[in-house]
Amino acid sequence: MEDRLEVLKGRQACEILDELGVDCWLIWVRETDQIVDPVLRFVYGGAFVWQTALLLTREGERIAIAGTHDAIGIPEGLFDRIEIYDEGISAKLRDVMSALDPASIAINVSESDVASDGMTHGMYQLLMRYMEGTPYADRLISSEELIGKLRGRKLPSEVKRIREAVRLTEEIFAEQFADLAVGQSEREIQGRFRQSMVARGLGDAWAADHNPAVDAGPDKEFGHGGPSDRLTCAGHLLHFDFGVNSNGYCSDLQRMIFFGAKEGIPEEVQRAFDAVLGAIDAAAEALRPGVPGHAIDAIARDFVTNLGYEEYKHALGHQVGRNAHDGGVILGPRWERYGDAVAGEVEVGNVFTLELNVRTEAYGQVSLEEDVLVTEAGSEFLSTQQRELICLPPGRPA
Amino acid sequence: MEDRLEVLKGRQACEILDELGVDCWLIWVRETDQIVDPVLRFVYGGAFVWQTALLLTREGERIAIAGTHDAIGIPEGLFDRIEIYDEGISAKLRDVMSALDPASIAINVSESDVASDGMTHGMYQLLMRYMEGTPYADRLISSEELIGKLRGRKLPSEVKRIREAVRLTEEIFAEQFADLAVGQSEREIQGRFRQSMVARGLGDAWAADHNPAVDAGPDKEFGHGGPSDRLTCAGHLLHFDFGVNSNGYCSDLQRMIFFGAKEGIPEEVQRAFDAVLGAIDAAAEALRPGVPGHAIDAIARDFVTNLGYEEYKHALGHQVGRNAHDGGVILGPRWERYGDAVAGEVEVGNVFTLELNVRTEAYGQVSLEEDVLVTEAGSEFLSTQQRELICLPPGRPA
Repeated sequence: MEDRLEVLKGRQACEILDELGVDCWLIWVRETDQIVDPVLRFVYGGAFVWQTALLLTREGERIAIAGTHDAIGIPEGLFDRIEIYDEGISAKLRDVMSALDPASIAINVSESDVASDGMTHGMYQLLMRYMEGTPYADRLISSEELIGKLRGRKLPSEVKRIREAVRLTEEIFAEQFADLAVGQSEREIQGRFRQSMVARGLGDAWAADHNPAVDAGPDKEFGHGGPSDRLTCAGHLLHFDFGVNSNGYCSDLQRMIFFGAKEGIPEEVQRAFDAVLGAIDAAAEALRPGVPGHAIDAIARDFVTNLGYEEYKHALGHQVGRNAHDGGVILGPRWERYGDAVAGEVEVGNVFTLELNVRTEAYGQVSLEEDVLVTEAGSEFLSTQQRELICLPPGRPA
Repeated sequence: MEDRLEVLKGRQACEILDELGVDCWLIWVRETDQIVDPVLRFVYGGAFVWQTALLLTREGERIAIAGTHDAIGIPEGLFDRIEIYDEGISAKLRDVMSALDPASIAINVSESDVASDGMTHGMYQLLMRYMEGTPYADRLISSEELIGKLRGRKLPSEVKRIREAVRLTEEIFAEQFADLAVGQSEREIQGRFRQSMVARGLGDAWAADHNPAVDAGPDKEFGHGGPSDRLTCAGHLLHFDFGVNSNGYCSDLQRMIFFGAKEGIPEEVQRAFDAVLGAIDAAAEALRPGVPGHAIDAIARDFVTNLGYEEYKHALGHQVGRNAHDGGVILGPRWERYGDAVAGEVEVGNVFTLELNVRTEAYGQVSLEEDVLVTEAGSEFLSTQQRELICLPPGRPA
């Protein structure tokens, strides 16, 4: 199954090379147990110790150049040819390059997109040194566009895996919401979510210490911090940011609980919830192929600022896939921190989060996050959208 | 416990900066759930999403510059100062740099040492852009020496963790050897080892698909390949390469089994085993602070070639620590593939593997690997050295 997907993604990469008019893609790695180019596993499921070059061409050829000890671990069917070296890779690399003689070589270097920036600077310097005296150093370009499209254009089997990750996340939410009560600590609640993940053999979509993020009450700043000893409290909100990794693909969802009866929801809270929901609806409505990322962000951002709220301090949406933050086009504002990633256009097969928060005076932040798939016609929610505050009766036995 | 070690290693880094006469060390990362500088966890246990700069100085100051959402996750006590940004990091980074005004800034870039090469090329380009118009771009140097010493000079609490990882590895070997029998497949044997790891809550020292590597019989080429359906067989050898991760630190050991009575060991096999054992003994005897890495490799290499064996096609030893391949000085030959890493000198507190194989005509490879600690006086085996072939009676019930 895994191999099959790697072959499919490898083939898709060759097709995108051809579409972009780029002759060749070089993945250039070593010691992948220490630091690994995040795109490697799209075309190869294993690890490499010695310097390894994987070359894919627009004609569909797949070549690996690997050290003896690594080469024996490469499964059959992934590459058309495996070149093996002992003491150093440089001669073989130059030979293969000369034979291919590509006019353009995409390498994994990007200022804006971490997912397309898997080549370390030392490896870049090595590559430059090995290419000295050849014309190829001058033919290098960024693989940013290639990788953005390769990761972004989810194949049906990838969408299926994301759907399953979302389904399992919602299953755990439902299971855990049934046990929530006033007087529980963030830490205790997180522990129970994690047990539910373990019981299902699920991995984390991001670092375990803040998965799920659990934020009780008005004083917690949402973000990438872990749970504390704060307790759930009647009349307060409880916020979750939760994502699992199922079969190599991720989910990423935020949910909001109110501890009290529906009639008891403070007007300020309901107004904030409706603002967030409305912004997500407006963004989802506008989300379709061909629109630049910043345009979708602006719709949600304007929606909340027009209602008098301060703008949220992050992007509206990132892509989800093998990683929770999957790189490529971002639905975000034109801030330095997002670089060129917000200028790219949305494509069919992209899976985005739609997420934002607004701040209330007395009850803290109200934040939601959904996962949506871009289709020919527009977009489709992969998650069961939270359209109302989930009200749990306060004072239930813990 | 984990935090404590990070504080200790951070302090050690500042001391090494002072020793090397380097003013400042910059760790420059983003989206560490996608790709993470392998040195980050030595000074910080968590993750960062937005661009983050960690600065440590020879005076002992520790500064973090992080985005709003990341900053709230930074535990107290790790940094003297946390600078927080919203839209972009560049202004704050330039401000902090100007205030420090370091004459030299070590960055994580290295051609030879993957452990010191955690900065991607895109992040390097960004840094150059953010430093434009300042004098600091010209003051960057490689952190290779700093990181080599920081990872290499194990603190007592780190050595303790490695000892425990080695002890648990040997415990699993002993448990599993009791169940070995003729007619079992490599895959089946690997599965049982992995159950023993899970039962103890242990992680992998390298990729799970070849941990342990299990090589039955004469026809298997040792390396980074996974187990096959080959069966153990009376009169044949069985080889393991196995490492666990216990509490963040690794072991890495190779062991050899012979299926038959001690008296039945073929002379060719015994002679090969003695050659490998003798080479490890000779290298361990010579291993002491101040000796360059290639000199130790040469002792073992000459030992086996003097006995008429072909030389082994890898380095004699790598350092072990947070990673099985921990970077820094390598006990290896002067091959292109090892770069400068074999020229460095062995230091007190280093933990090295000593590993090599020789080839027999009829029985395949014979290979051993031990883990040793460098002390003031020389070296100390952390593993219980395998000094004899482990003979298992053939025909035991499976």
